[in-house]
Amino acid sequence: MPVYKAPIREFEFVLNEYLGLERYQDVPGFSEASEDLRSAILQEGARFCEEVLFPLNQKGDQQGVRYENGTVKLPDGFVDAYKQYVEGGWPSFACDPNYGGQGLPEFLNMAAIEMICSANLSFGITPGLSHGAYNALMLHGSEELKAAYLPKIVTGEWSGVMGLTEPQCGTDLGLIRTKAIPQEDGSYTITGTKIFISSGEQDATDNIIHLVLAKLPDAPEGTKGISLFLVPKVLLDGTRNGVNCSGVEHKMGIHASPTCVINFEEAKGWLISVPHGGMKAMFTMMNSARLYVGVQGLGLAEVAQQNAFAYANERVQGRALTGVARPDKPADPIIVHPDVRRMLLTMKAFTEAARALAMETALKSDLYHRHPDKKVREDCDHFIQLMTPILKAYFTDMGTEVANLAMQVHGGYGYIAEYGVEQYARDARIAQIYEGTNGIQALDLIGRKLPYNTGRYLRQFFHPAMAFVEEHRNNPEMAEFTKPLHKHLGYLQQASLWLGQRGLVNPNDAAGGSVEYLRMFALVVFAHIWAKKAAIALQNRDKDPEYYEAKLATARFFMNKILPGTVSLLQSITNGSDSIMKAKL
Amino acid sequence: MPVYKAPIREFEFVLNEYLGLERYQDVPGFSEASEDLRSAILQEGARFCEEVLFPLNQKGDQQGVRYENGTVKLPDGFVDAYKQYVEGGWPSFACDPNYGGQGLPEFLNMAAIEMICSANLSFGITPGLSHGAYNALMLHGSEELKAAYLPKIVTGEWSGVMGLTEPQCGTDLGLIRTKAIPQEDGSYTITGTKIFISSGEQDATDNIIHLVLAKLPDAPEGTKGISLFLVPKVLLDGTRNGVNCSGVEHKMGIHASPTCVINFEEAKGWLISVPHGGMKAMFTMMNSARLYVGVQGLGLAEVAQQNAFAYANERVQGRALTGVARPDKPADPIIVHPDVRRMLLTMKAFTEAARALAMETALKSDLYHRHPDKKVREDCDHFIQLMTPILKAYFTDMGTEVANLAMQVHGGYGYIAEYGVEQYARDARIAQIYEGTNGIQALDLIGRKLPYNTGRYLRQFFHPAMAFVEEHRNNPEMAEFTKPLHKHLGYLQQASLWLGQRGLVNPNDAAGGSVEYLRMFALVVFAHIWAKKAAIALQNRDKDPEYYEAKLATARFFMNKILPGTVSLLQSITNGSDSIMKAKL
Repeated sequence: MPVYKAPIREFEFVLNEYLGLERYQDVPGFSEASEDLRSAILQEGARFCEEVLFPLNQKGDQQGVRYENGTVKLPDGFVDAYKQYVEGGWPSFACDPNYGGQGLPEFLNMAAIEMICSANLSFGITPGLSHGAYNALMLHGSEELKAAYLPKIVTGEWSGVMGLTEPQCGTDLGLIRTKAIPQEDGSYTITGTKIFISSGEQDATDNIIHLVLAKLPDAPEGTKGISLFLVPKVLLDGTRNGVNCSGVEHKMGIHASPTCVINFEEAKGWLISVPHGGMKAMFTMMNSARLYVGVQGLGLAEVAQQNAFAYANERVQGRALTGVARPDKPADPIIVHPDVRRMLLTMKAFTEAARALAMETALKSDLYHRHPDKKVREDCDHFIQLMTPILKAYFTDMGTEVANLAMQVHGGYGYIAEYGVEQYARDARIAQIYEGTNGIQALDLIGRKLPYNTGRYLRQFFHPAMAFVEEHRNNPEMAEFTKPLHKHLGYLQQASLWLGQRGLVNPNDAAGGSVEYLRMFALVVFAHIWAKKAAIALQNRDKDPEYYEAKLATARFFMNKILPGTVSLLQSITNGSDSIMKAKL
Repeated sequence: MPVYKAPIREFEFVLNEYLGLERYQDVPGFSEASEDLRSAILQEGARFCEEVLFPLNQKGDQQGVRYENGTVKLPDGFVDAYKQYVEGGWPSFACDPNYGGQGLPEFLNMAAIEMICSANLSFGITPGLSHGAYNALMLHGSEELKAAYLPKIVTGEWSGVMGLTEPQCGTDLGLIRTKAIPQEDGSYTITGTKIFISSGEQDATDNIIHLVLAKLPDAPEGTKGISLFLVPKVLLDGTRNGVNCSGVEHKMGIHASPTCVINFEEAKGWLISVPHGGMKAMFTMMNSARLYVGVQGLGLAEVAQQNAFAYANERVQGRALTGVARPDKPADPIIVHPDVRRMLLTMKAFTEAARALAMETALKSDLYHRHPDKKVREDCDHFIQLMTPILKAYFTDMGTEVANLAMQVHGGYGYIAEYGVEQYARDARIAQIYEGTNGIQALDLIGRKLPYNTGRYLRQFFHPAMAFVEEHRNNPEMAEFTKPLHKHLGYLQQASLWLGQRGLVNPNDAAGGSVEYLRMFALVVFAHIWAKKAAIALQNRDKDPEYYEAKLATARFFMNKILPGTVSLLQSITNGSDSIMKAKL
């Protein structure tokens, strides 16, 4: 019943016009990803997502995963879909050719990931985590470990998963109890219980490579004493390791994704990176995972939006307030009603800008890894550092919000499983929680990103945004976009200054306003994106009036109806945290 | 695993201190509901909800209802719980003694309803709808129909349900196709299909009385041609009527509440009210149902909040930013963290004020029915008219928001069925949709309530709120509450004026800002409530410092952190609807 069509034109708009990829033809590896190849990959990805993954999504939700005697069966059709995914070469896409990868840029992978998240979020979690494990191993693993494990992770024959959480510790990883005892052969014996392990056990891959946080016997207290280990489910000699799944969780959504309890019972493992260096290595994996989780929010918002538009065009109910729109029908389609339009435009204003930011962040990651100029690489790193918490938290908050708006557009049908949109709302909800709750993202933003090197990360946003305002100062057609952008940039600067200064005196003032600050930041980042899109649309309007006028219309909606949200946030932030901290709770 | 304790102290605070019930001792029927009786009823209601209904809630969600050959079985234990409910006399509580009711005021019933919604929303839907049907029949039914049907609805042996929606029509009831053909004996033959009929079929009552909208053969087009009929599942002579359930929906939540497709196949029915007078009669039922649905949001928010507080006090993770709070533990309870406190206070600030508004509205309804002074009755009616859309929409929006905040406080555990909070989020979601989506409530507010008799409804809020500000003008201790109230009352007036004036010129401007206006209105209503509570707390502080200081603290939090929300809403509203209406969608 629900529908999904990959938004290929939108991907191409972002890549070719918004990011202007041809400017980067000289960066190693970029010319290989020519416009033709990009187009072919998008088409093939779209086909796979629309025809293979999407039809399994509702069934997977209804059937769920089945746990039995330590094994987990994915819903019917999932294992076969995964096979097709591997045969299509998707896992190796953005991986290093030295380990069998295709060496394509991340920004193309990002488009594929978004489509997968739209079509079947539960399916996508296994390969999504594998890619994070690949990144961590690439960066922190020894040559031996990389040679032994990466090739099959790259092909997708094996998967990689993260083992962080334990019953008594989630956010505060200093509390973990899993132990690693060094052995004479250089390996370690890992013992402990990990919970909430996504894809921790499944029947789609021959082996599952667990990257596990544990403590060495001489570990210092807290997070400084955490080390990262590679612990395969099946050892290289084919014998089964002491890695056992003792159950799966019953959850609100992502029913086709197994969330496992994993017991490590004197399992053989190998150290990744240095002793007690686990947090750093884990953050490589986590930062990649945070961007990926953000895109889950975007992917679900996109498919929810498509279904809301389809329903709003089809369902007739009531008449337009300013006169009958469709006299041939017993009532007008509900898309004529202002509040339905407000909901639909809210969705569009989010998804289209979010896509631009996701792909820009992926592009910065490519440039960070490939660009010859050190300054460019550093700037890219700073951009990614700054945007990671925003992307993770705002995209996933909006994923839930857009899915809920789509339900609301559907009226009573929105609550009924058959129509599919309620699943998006349930599936989207986890993304606000895992890989660091959105509250933790906000603390990351104000605690690590805002103060870093007296605002050096912040400059990666403020400088180009201010420059953009300056550049278009004398263009009267741009004034309706640059004026609000300029004004709200000012508000964001006020909030940044207030939090930066007060945070030094009273950290509660900063933490108490952190969630509001992240939302405010995201709104102004999106205003910048919409102003940039408007500039492109004004330039290209004559080429395809309908397409570019729609971009201008959505940009106007964002400036008029969404961006004013910052004003209340600024007031609330600068009212301080006394009323939060002094209440006896 | 989840917990629930009825908030009896809060009910008593609202009844005795906030509403000052002793002022109304002379109103007929009020003296019977003495403080002692009220207390006894609250205690007994609390026991029933905590011990009987709450333990069934999670099981009911997991098991769901079972449809088989036209019958619907409620989950295990529900039929027995309903029997206890009837034996306890709860259905007859606020009903007319002429039909076997106890004649107690609605405000007490309201407390019972809130507790039931907290303990087991799905269970509560059957009696909740019955009470709405009772109200409609009381007001619009003939003496014969009342005599024949009311007594068993009052005892709860029979239930009453509403049959409005059809596959092609929800909001736009003018599109209904169900037909009513007059018969020689004065009855009608009803034929048609109704969907989304909550409790349309179940195995807890001996009979189900359907109040059904249908069209007479000579009906004019649209909503002017709708009539309301009483159509019992079982006729008075014991024979089965042509009322058949052909299936139940699979839904996001309220799994223990059957949502039925009901086929009327030449069923025997009787006209309620006059021919083509169905909309008016139905609105009696609907307005009562809208208040009830609002309280569903409150009830779920209350139980979600209780679980969030319990978890936040128990779960240890990380350390307080300003120094270790619990050196005896490996980490501090998460209630020390500013953002967790912000979430908890947001919940409290909503539930406590919402309870006051719900009970005040119920009190106004009692005064409307019982007060000897016509002017008082009229004012009460206006207050209810104004508050109904606000209560329905804002309470249910916040029900969902609070349940989601409770999930967020729980971190990963929030997504797991076992912990119970994710069920509250799923159950709460329907309340934003049924009995008129929240968008429809907003249109009701700006279209019917705002302009009524040049703002006569509005005065029921603005006059007492302004008088309150005036009364406390010279009290410096109250300034932190009355100043923000005064300022935001001004913003609300600006918005009201803008929408009122622009709505005359361009109805899209009013409709396009309606949802934002309703939210703004609700925030300012809540500011008034918190200012009133603060005044009471300041007066009584010495009697019980801990209790009243907590009230002051929550009032401060509301003024500092929640009320600023109006500023953005005002900007967005006054930016108009051009960007909504001109976009080509």
